[in-house]
Amino acid sequence: MTNLDSPTAAIARLTDSASALDAADPLAAYRAEFLDTPGVVAYLDGNSLGRPLRATRCSLDRFVEDEWSARLIRGWDERWMSQPCAVGDRIASVLLGAAPGQTVVGDSTSVLIYKLVRAAIAAAPAGRDEIVVDTDNFPTDRFIVQGIADELGVTLRWIETDLLHGPQPRDVAAVAGPRTALVLLSHVSYRSAAIADMGAITAIAHEAGALMMWDLCHSAGAVPTELDAHGVDFAVGCTYKFLNGGPGAPAFAYVRAGLIGDIEQPVHGWMGAADPFEMGFAYTPAAGIGRMLSGTPAILAMQPMQDMLALLERAGIQAVRDKSIALTGFVLDFYDAVLEHLGFRLDSPRDATLRGAHVTLGHDQARELTAALWKQGVIPDFRTPNGIRVGLSPLSTSFAEVCAGLARLAGLAER
Amino acid sequence: MTNLDSPTAAIARLTDSASALDAADPLAAYRAEFLDTPGVVAYLDGNSLGRPLRATRCSLDRFVEDEWSARLIRGWDERWMSQPCAVGDRIASVLLGAAPGQTVVGDSTSVLIYKLVRAAIAAAPAGRDEIVVDTDNFPTDRFIVQGIADELGVTLRWIETDLLHGPQPRDVAAVAGPRTALVLLSHVSYRSAAIADMGAITAIAHEAGALMMWDLCHSAGAVPTELDAHGVDFAVGCTYKFLNGGPGAPAFAYVRAGLIGDIEQPVHGWMGAADPFEMGFAYTPAAGIGRMLSGTPAILAMQPMQDMLALLERAGIQAVRDKSIALTGFVLDFYDAVLEHLGFRLDSPRDATLRGAHVTLGHDQARELTAALWKQGVIPDFRTPNGIRVGLSPLSTSFAEVCAGLARLAGLAER
Repeated sequence: MTNLDSPTAAIARLTDSASALDAADPLAAYRAEFLDTPGVVAYLDGNSLGRPLRATRCSLDRFVEDEWSARLIRGWDERWMSQPCAVGDRIASVLLGAAPGQTVVGDSTSVLIYKLVRAAIAAAPAGRDEIVVDTDNFPTDRFIVQGIADELGVTLRWIETDLLHGPQPRDVAAVAGPRTALVLLSHVSYRSAAIADMGAITAIAHEAGALMMWDLCHSAGAVPTELDAHGVDFAVGCTYKFLNGGPGAPAFAYVRAGLIGDIEQPVHGWMGAADPFEMGFAYTPAAGIGRMLSGTPAILAMQPMQDMLALLERAGIQAVRDKSIALTGFVLDFYDAVLEHLGFRLDSPRDATLRGAHVTLGHDQARELTAALWKQGVIPDFRTPNGIRVGLSPLSTSFAEVCAGLARLAGLAER
Repeated sequence: MTNLDSPTAAIARLTDSASALDAADPLAAYRAEFLDTPGVVAYLDGNSLGRPLRATRCSLDRFVEDEWSARLIRGWDERWMSQPCAVGDRIASVLLGAAPGQTVVGDSTSVLIYKLVRAAIAAAPAGRDEIVVDTDNFPTDRFIVQGIADELGVTLRWIETDLLHGPQPRDVAAVAGPRTALVLLSHVSYRSAAIADMGAITAIAHEAGALMMWDLCHSAGAVPTELDAHGVDFAVGCTYKFLNGGPGAPAFAYVRAGLIGDIEQPVHGWMGAADPFEMGFAYTPAAGIGRMLSGTPAILAMQPMQDMLALLERAGIQAVRDKSIALTGFVLDFYDAVLEHLGFRLDSPRDATLRGAHVTLGHDQARELTAALWKQGVIPDFRTPNGIRVGLSPLSTSFAEVCAGLARLAGLAER
């Protein structure tokens, strides 16, 4: 391509390229596993809410009839009590690089962050009264640690992250020290998709004597991690994005095996107790990762994510990541050939190894453009102050869909 | 009946009586609204997990296709953001005697208790550092306040409740005083079904200058309450029992309108913020009851309970309560005529106005009898130390079913 291409010619060329990429995509057949959405030309928000699998209609119906109705309360003994940890183990194995017994599904990401940060602070040696956190972390992470800081008198040490690059090892090294109890960062930035260097940053936190916690909301299901290999202490993640669990599906928490017995979370609900049905006077936490639970686990809401885990097991997370890089790479090609000349900025990393599964395109009229795109059946997300976030769930998104969506964006911006 | 009846004759008479009661039951037709469970003779545990409605299979399928798939992320703006409060208002109107704007669906009962107790303690005037709680309250309630007491240095003032009668106004009056911040009790005892005197006890708490919180887990959907009329400050309740929300369905929280603006819960998640999508630096709680939320609301898991709310709206909660009293009354008749002579004790109140929707039958071999009943397709619940809990969800339970289940219990006990 050259800058001499007209936008129309460039889009025609990119459309051909998208067709060729789809034809060569080894995962193309997976798209048929998802329900169609009439009227939607391009769904570019699978990182905010994943599309439902066709199988999920059946699995919910099967759950209601074969488990809930057929087994009634017996379902708890027979299967459901073990499900938060069983599904957690499956997430750990497929996506997180984590051995069994360290991951559990329950609550929301926000509630799990609260519990884990409180547990980390309680476990920290005396004198460690600071949490390192990032100004560009997702609001709920920031709000929750701010609340905890207020209630416990802990000090927050803010890293002023450069949006495009995310938190850097040197940023963490500059603030982590003998007073640091915990470092809490997102692995993939919710705005720019910048991938933080999990290995280097975890090592820096540990060198400082601190615990390390990663928010994997924008990683889980698209960008593989190696939690065990990096010695990560805590992680949380979301299941309604790339795990297609449905709106408000429960989240997951990971705690390093060697830590589980030493930490205690503050919400002492019966389902986190060693024997929930003993119903004795005092709470004794479960020996394993189940101690992170509090109330009755959301079993019904845990069904759809299992359909997507089956798909990810079949496809393999590395193949999913390869397609994800190709999809976001295609957005970069489109940006270079067309959008850059129409007043857009690239607010995501160019280096594929540093880029998660979405691309944010900055534009002064981002809010208005997003609203206009939605009217045309092209659904990205708007993120303040001026970003159009193009989120590409690898198994449910085609290159042609991305191209069609961005072509409409170009058309709107031209006017 | 006389004590001269043989057990066989008494059961024959009770079976006839059950048939007559079913024939005269104005709510009998509602039983057809629930899915059948092959092999189950009597489901006597609807107060632990309500049976699924037939309509729920359709409503889940409709939700996946018409909302999740058809609207994708747009569903949040169009409908889902308002659903926690909208469904909360519906629960408030049908079951709680509460005006709109005070009830919200989210999290689990345990997490909501944690948030509300923390909020109550934070709102209490200086010097009020005690919580009044009941030794027979459900374990999660006790565990959670014990955890909070440990973390905040609050003192728990335990009421030693008589199992059969539940917490009495005089018990509360004896311990509530100038140091009481909060009184936390269950409205219906999870073991005996004893109904606490909500009006008298709330008034006593208020006279002492304390806030009053009720756990409605064993009330909601079976025993109506008048939260507004009694000036109750806080309440929580469960939706997977008499609201048939499915295993692990989210709970609800009520906060008195006049208090909402003055309280703050500790889990500052983005969905409890005034404008979740502003994504600014600081957390500002929502003006209304939505401030009790933290993470992304469990929208999918909120669907089945709405089917049951529709049924309860149609039937009317007073008619449901009337049938509930008749059902538990039938268990008492069966106890008097048969079970009392077979080594059982009545561990629930005889006075219908003081009895919730289940009856607990004490027996030295309660655990073994429950296990044997399950093998025969009769499903009550065992509760430590020696109770067989017969839970009767009014709209899904027939008198004949209760009679058949208790007849098998009698047969087992005779051997």
